[in-house]
Amino acid sequence: MHSKMRSFAKKFLYISGHLFFEVRKMADLPIAAVVRIAKKNGAERVGSDAAEALVVRAEKYIAGLTKEANKLAEHAGRKTIKKEDVDLAAKS
Amino acid sequence: MHSKMRSFAKKFLYISGHLFFEVRKMADLPIAAVVRIAKKNGAERVGSDAAEALVVRAEKYIAGLTKEANKLAEHAGRKTIKKEDVDLAAKS
Repeated sequence: MHSKMRSFAKKFLYISGHLFFEVRKMADLPIAAVVRIAKKNGAERVGSDAAEALVVRAEKYIAGLTKEANKLAEHAGRKTIKKEDVDLAAKS
Repeated sequence: MHSKMRSFAKKFLYISGHLFFEVRKMADLPIAAVVRIAKKNGAERVGSDAAEALVVRAEKYIAGLTKEANKLAEHAGRKTIKKEDVDLAAKS
């Protein structure tokens, strides 16, 4: 039983290592670009954990805005998101 | 007077051409990355004007979040923004 647990723990560690790799790979926005924007807006130094948090939150923001804009495009009978969908989505 | 107006109009066009160039140069987030995020979140097609609008809005979001996080870091006597500043800024 104990060895089964250990084997499970090893597997779990392997899996979480894999997940961690996947999670890091999932980021689409380049960290350097996000840090550049932060520095243009008054940030003197940005910790690496803070930079990653900015990336994650910016991606979530884009995801939310896109989902709303997509709903509006479909409502207008289109499959292509237009600027007007993004603008209206940002207002709601 | 009329020729002065024309010269003004030409100058204005020149200036606005320049401004347009500057505005386009200001974008730090790559359009392709933003479109990739949009497609991962249900967008079938994203018009180029919509993609640019997403970039502009995402950059504004990062700018706002950074300014707030920076205030919080300074309040805590730091010059470096940490993840906790970003997280608290996102809540407020």
